[in-house]
Formats: sequence, structure tokens, C-alpha cells
Amino acid sequence: MSLVVVGSVAYDGVATPHGRVDRMLGGACTYIALAASYFTHAKIVAVVGEDFDQADTELLESRGIDLAGLERVPGKTFFWAAVYSEDMNERTTLRTDLNAFANFAPKLPEHYKNQPYLMLGNIQPALQHSVREQMNGLRFAGGDTMNYWISDYRGELLETLKHWDFLLINDSEARQLSGERSLRRAAQAIQRMGPRTLVIKRGEFGAVLFHDDWQFSVPGYLLDPVFDPTGAGDSFAGGFIGYLAEQEIDPSKDDVGPNHLRAAVVYGSVMGSFCCERFGVDRFRTLTRAEIDGRFREFKAFTEF
Amino acid sequence: MSLVVVGSVAYDGVATPHGRVDRMLGGACTYIALAASYFTHAKIVAVVGEDFDQADTELLESRGIDLAGLERVPGKTFFWAAVYSEDMNERTTLRTDLNAFANFAPKLPEHYKNQPYLMLGNIQPALQHSVREQMNGLRFAGGDTMNYWISDYRGELLETLKHWDFLLINDSEARQLSGERSLRRAAQAIQRMGPRTLVIKRGEFGAVLFHDDWQFSVPGYLLDPVFDPTGAGDSFAGGFIGYLAEQEIDPSKDDVGPNHLRAAVVYGSVMGSFCCERFGVDRFRTLTRAEIDGRFREFKAFTEF
Repeated sequence: MSLVVVGSVAYDGVATPHGRVDRMLGGACTYIALAASYFTHAKIVAVVGEDFDQADTELLESRGIDLAGLERVPGKTFFWAAVYSEDMNERTTLRTDLNAFANFAPKLPEHYKNQPYLMLGNIQPALQHSVREQMNGLRFAGGDTMNYWISDYRGELLETLKHWDFLLINDSEARQLSGERSLRRAAQAIQRMGPRTLVIKRGEFGAVLFHDDWQFSVPGYLLDPVFDPTGAGDSFAGGFIGYLAEQEIDPSKDDVGPNHLRAAVVYGSVMGSFCCERFGVDRFRTLTRAEIDGRFREFKAFTEF
Repeated sequence: MSLVVVGSVAYDGVATPHGRVDRMLGGACTYIALAASYFTHAKIVAVVGEDFDQADTELLESRGIDLAGLERVPGKTFFWAAVYSEDMNERTTLRTDLNAFANFAPKLPEHYKNQPYLMLGNIQPALQHSVREQMNGLRFAGGDTMNYWISDYRGELLETLKHWDFLLINDSEARQLSGERSLRRAAQAIQRMGPRTLVIKRGEFGAVLFHDDWQFSVPGYLLDPVFDPTGAGDSFAGGFIGYLAEQEIDPSKDDVGPNHLRAAVVYGSVMGSFCCERFGVDRFRTLTRAEIDGRFREFKAFTEF
């Protein structure tokens, strides 16, 4: 069962208290696809410039990721630079050069269109919607968004959300989108907008899942230290949807099932935690499925009572 | 098996976005004893002034709390007033009138001295230590502290901690006390100071327990809404130590046991969550053990996977 992932493939410059990298592979689509690749076949839809390195293409290919939807256009690849605060709970964006990404109009290769799972990374809601419309035979589709789209593209976003099975956002975005301070009330309001499943990511404090009228919470993994939080949320998304694709869940037939969704949130947390252990995507160069399943068992051990 | 609780009994003035109360029963010792009273017999050591209301004495007595150690002195009872921010994650202290509490020198009634469990609320470390020294036959003793003692009474606090089995503090206090940002490293450093068991409270995000070399995390209960967070941390402490006293745990004989400590952290979380549902101690006027066990099962349901 294959997963289609849409979003940015980029170069990032990142400085944390542990060091600094001026240019490294990044972008939401990259992190989602790399994390998901441990569970399922990921097929990406993205755009890069002429400067996109062969080594980065090879990294994605080495994880079995389908690059048929990776468009290459004249000019440079999307570039983003940021610096994290001492405690890494805040980051300041230093540069956002859209470059090739400025005119991104996602085009799906024919063999993508009948895949059952779809994860839409954080891009303009209308683009997310256009991809959703190109797919047929979807079982479970959804994505991410951010404060900018919530405030400045609200109508477009609400129209897009109507057609999603799930939404993955952080707690401040959930509060902004719903206008509710309480996460329970925020979740109810967002579920009424469309997505039956909502995952609220809370960074180092874990994540909460809402599905219909039940809820599941997982605490954060205590990392020592957090090396670079860039991409943790997208890696979470990749683990979450990747695991559901691996399990071939089919809500139209047998519901998603509380057990699968709970495990998916934990696998999301596992992938987010690994991502923070090295700069950028570096942890995915060596990570194995055995390590992933080992950390899943660790989550069980430190949460069970 | 009885529990001795030492700390402040006070009157509080509190304003939250949900309302305002100018004068109500409060104080660390009050919250700890009330929460613990659902599990064990609590015996308090505290001081109040002549203005202490008969109705408040009766509330404590109605929960079976032993008031033999509640000293009454001339003057007024400790008064504290604070206002919470809109999101209730910050509070500003408006007034601290120590009054009767200024010369508090805890005196233990004879029948307190051979009790096996001791919870020292947040007071000056030397006073906490003097109580610890008056007890004989202790099985499990420890307490709370705060930023002021950590920064200005560090030597005294470190001497006190050497003799504690457990310490319950919040995450910023754990970082301040240890000088470590990572909670894992902070816990290791604090365990080397004395307490074998450390509970780090994280407010709405839950709590983490460290015991020897293992760890247990529980996410926060999603309240809708949080009415008044005053006393939540002390109610947590009361549920934690109260449950361990109820189970008659004896580390000198059979170790505390991971299962008991895990359940104690969850019962602490349960009591902290109930406390936030009404102003001050009001929730404890109607709360039943059946409701407590019901919420314990809720914690199981929303964390199990």
C-alpha cells in the first residue's frame, strides 16, 4: 500500500546551541517521506531547482522513495534558515527564499493517482486541495497546516479541511484555528470542520489524538540532549501515516480502530524523537526499523501502569 | 498507616479568567492533607492565627484529618493573593502577608512521631529538616521546595535533601536545582543529592517520575476548562504520598516497586486535575473516592496502547 506525500523539498540553514549547518537537505516533504519510508512505499510530489544535489537524490532513493513526482525546474531550490533559542523552544526564521517553490503547482504522475494514502505537507490550502482532487480511491487523506494559512487564508483552508480524514497540527495552531483555549473544545470544533481524526503535537510534551469522541495522549520522549528539532513534527507525521499505510487500514470498510490509531501516534512520536537526535535528516541515514521498534517498546515501558 | 503533613495553612485571594475569590482556605499543607485524606489518615503540622474560621476547621475534620498539630497563635493567618494570566500558565503574586506563619517552628505532637510517612510542604529547608529529625520509624519521607530556597538557601536545602527518600518539584525547579536543561540529566544530578525518587510536575503537560535508573511518564488530564490551578501541585503531592501510605509500601523491606510508584503518580495527577475544577479547595467538599478511581481508569483508557 503506497503513500503519496506532497510538500516542500528544501535546503535549510540551522543553528542550535549544539552547532550550526549552513546548508543541508530539509523540507516537510523530505522529512515526512523519510520517516514514512520505514513503514511503507512513499511517493513524493515536490519541486527543486538545478542546484539539487545528486547525493540528496540518492539518499531518498536509498530509502525506496518514488521520485517520479519530483519536478526539477530552472533556478535554485527553496532555501530556509533559522536559529533556535538556548532552550530550543523558540526559533527565529532568518531567511525564506522560495526560489523554485514560488510557482509550485503539484502535478501527480499517473501511477500516483490511485494510491490509498495521502499526506499533504504544509503548503497553501488550495494546492493541497488540488492534489486531493486529482486522487481517486483514497482511503485516508489529510495533512498539516500553519498559522499563516489559518489567519490569512482561512476560507480556503476551511474549504480544504472539509475533505480531509485527518489533520495534524500543534497546540497553538489548534487554538488559533478553533478559537478555543481548551484542547478538548478545540478538537470538537476542528472535527466539525471536517477531519474525523485530529492529532495535536505538543513538542517535547508529547501528542494528543482525538477520533470521534475518544482521545489518546502520549507523553514526550525525554531526549538527552535535543540536538536539532527541525523536522520533528514532519517526522511525526511520516511515522503516523506510514504506520497506518503499513497496516492497510481502511476506514470505509472496518473503521480505523482505536488500537491502530494509538500505535500510529506512538510511532509518530518515535520518529519525531529520532529526528531530533542529529542535525537535519542525518539520523535517517543510519536509523533501522529494529531501533524504531525498540523505541516503541520503550514508550510502552515508560507509560504503562 | 498514617501520614504526617507539614506546611502552610493559609487564606488565599485568587483571580482567574473564570472569576475571583477574595478570601478562601488555602496553603500547601491544606491541599496536601485534603488530597491525601482520600487514601490515608493525614496528621497536619501547621500554624494559623485567631481569625481561622471554625467552618474551615470543620472541613478538615470532616475529612478525618488530625489537627492536634495545628497550632493557633495570636494575630492573623498567613495570607496570599495572586492573579492568573489569561491562559493561566502564569501567575503574579499580589500579596504575601506571613502573619502567624512568620515564626512557624513546627512542633510534633507525641503521637505523630512514630508515623511511617512524611510529606514536607514547601517551607524553609531547615524547618523541613527539623521535622524529619523529630520523627522515628519513617519508611518514606520527602517533600517539595521552590525557586527561592534553591537560589538563596542552597546549602541548607542540599543538607536537607540528603535525608529525603523523594522530592516533588516542577520542571523549572528541577532545572534550577541541577543546572541541567535535559530532564534526564537533571534527574540524575538530583538523585545524587539524596532522593532516590524524583517526581517532576509539568502542569497541564503531566508528570515524570524517576526512580533509581527507570522512568515513568504520564500525560496531563485535559480539563475543560481549568477553573483555578491554585493548589494543583500540592494536591498531586497528597494523592502521590497518600496512595503510597494506603498501600503501606515499605522500601526498607520490599522496595517501593515500580507498579506502586507508577500508580502513585497517576493518583497524584488525578487529584491535581480534580483540584483545578473549582476555586480553591471547593472540589474536595464533594469529591468521592469513587470519582477518584473513575478518573484513574480514565487515565488508563487514554494512555494505553
